[in-house]
Amino acid sequence: MPILVAGSLAIDSISTPSGSREETLGGAASYFSVAASLYDQVRLVGVIGRDFRDDDLVHFRTRRIDLGGLERKEEGLTFRWSGSYEGRMDAAKTLETRLNVLAEFRPTLPQHFRDTPLVFLANTDPVTQAHVCSQMTRPRFMLLDTMNFWIDGRREDLYKAMQAAGNVILNDDEARALGASSNLNVAVERIAAIGVDTIVVKRGEHGALLYKEGRTFGLTALPLASVVDPTGAGDTFAGGFMGALAAGNDLSFAGMRRALLHATVMASFTVEGFGLERLLKVTRRDVEERLEELLHHTTP
Amino acid sequence: MPILVAGSLAIDSISTPSGSREETLGGAASYFSVAASLYDQVRLVGVIGRDFRDDDLVHFRTRRIDLGGLERKEEGLTFRWSGSYEGRMDAAKTLETRLNVLAEFRPTLPQHFRDTPLVFLANTDPVTQAHVCSQMTRPRFMLLDTMNFWIDGRREDLYKAMQAAGNVILNDDEARALGASSNLNVAVERIAAIGVDTIVVKRGEHGALLYKEGRTFGLTALPLASVVDPTGAGDTFAGGFMGALAAGNDLSFAGMRRALLHATVMASFTVEGFGLERLLKVTRRDVEERLEELLHHTTP
Repeated sequence: MPILVAGSLAIDSISTPSGSREETLGGAASYFSVAASLYDQVRLVGVIGRDFRDDDLVHFRTRRIDLGGLERKEEGLTFRWSGSYEGRMDAAKTLETRLNVLAEFRPTLPQHFRDTPLVFLANTDPVTQAHVCSQMTRPRFMLLDTMNFWIDGRREDLYKAMQAAGNVILNDDEARALGASSNLNVAVERIAAIGVDTIVVKRGEHGALLYKEGRTFGLTALPLASVVDPTGAGDTFAGGFMGALAAGNDLSFAGMRRALLHATVMASFTVEGFGLERLLKVTRRDVEERLEELLHHTTP
Repeated sequence: MPILVAGSLAIDSISTPSGSREETLGGAASYFSVAASLYDQVRLVGVIGRDFRDDDLVHFRTRRIDLGGLERKEEGLTFRWSGSYEGRMDAAKTLETRLNVLAEFRPTLPQHFRDTPLVFLANTDPVTQAHVCSQMTRPRFMLLDTMNFWIDGRREDLYKAMQAAGNVILNDDEARALGASSNLNVAVERIAAIGVDTIVVKRGEHGALLYKEGRTFGLTALPLASVVDPTGAGDTFAGGFMGALAAGNDLSFAGMRRALLHATVMASFTVEGFGLERLLKVTRRDVEERLEELLHHTTP
């Protein structure tokens, strides 16, 4: 079944111990849609400025990604992010963020996008996220990503968006901040009490935790020999998760456990190259092979 | 089969967000032997001073723990450690360490200890660890624990002890320090190249990684609702690991994977109480129940 993603397209500048890239394709919606399109049809909602390269649009056009919800604003510039990583690379140091055309973005979805059953709300202003939710006519599963900026400063709006979406994905630190506990288990229970059904906690190289109505599933990640750039790993993870849910047509706890394996595998590719470089080359066969590896690595 | 442990017995003072304990039973060999004795016969090699309480010895005497290798030095005091934890409690802040009788300890093993097939060398001076290894007549599996103090300052001696033992257990930070890489996978490969066969990496609430001759197994931990005091979790983990190896009489990769589950379960009890308080109450039935939980939580 088709998957809608509403989120950023960006021009990123990245520096890691392995090297650097200037003005390369980035943004949550880019990583998400490339990953998810390996599984099913993706409908992309986003905004770009006049500086966005046509060559980068080709990556979407040559995949199962419907650009009917992509606005290009000739009067503005694309969202730009630059950041660097050091040591274990478990957190980016943001050097600069320029929202540009993203600042005023309150998308009105094309008619044919509104009945999409699966929806991913990439990290952005929670009012925008709730606005997207409100336009969906027959959602089966909507997943919301967020970050500390909104957790710290816009908690009321975030709660409303979370309740509208019904499910959240966030990283370990964000989960503890949102649930106001240094104990992850306690934090997750409190997040559920806000009014969400499924919670996915991304733990970077430590894997992920799935929580759904009191049941939990923990998955460790594959130890990777080469980690070049973690940018986009979380959004790729979400893309693998939603893609596998769509392809498996199974929204049960069992279906989500399986989807978490795909999420982990997809993210493992992204970190092996700068930006989208590695992810763009991934084939279904690569995914199947690494899934086997992950099963060998994690089956007790 | 019996398990020998050489390591510290201590009097600890601990402070955590849940409260504090003054002068409570501690030490690597204490946690290890209580955990491992739930599975098989333990032979304890250690030293205490005149201040060690008889009441604390009762915990060992009422379990399958042979104290034939325990020296009491009336002229000295027991090893003392005090530390505190904050926030996520992923690392202790050491407030004070007094080696006391431990400083000069170079144990000569009793004759009937020397043919013990399984050996755990708790963290201590690597020369002492190698000295214990050299007295073993028929070891089947010897596992060495260490810490940054020896990795940073006594690398040559540590390498010799590691080669004598043949297998190591250490935490995530220590593995990266010993393998001189921020990438855990790279670090582990380098540790193997020093001349060890099996490497167990303890990752606290993130679980553990097992490496044996190029094969890996990753296990995530159970998310715990209550974490009171992490002191001794690593040594309890080692006790569960060696105990399960002994009881299963299986030193293959499959046997070690299974033992890692027991290790994770045993450690999960220790952190639920101060010092050994919770661990001392654990029954085989508790272990079986939590093992079921862990399997549900981690089976893909």
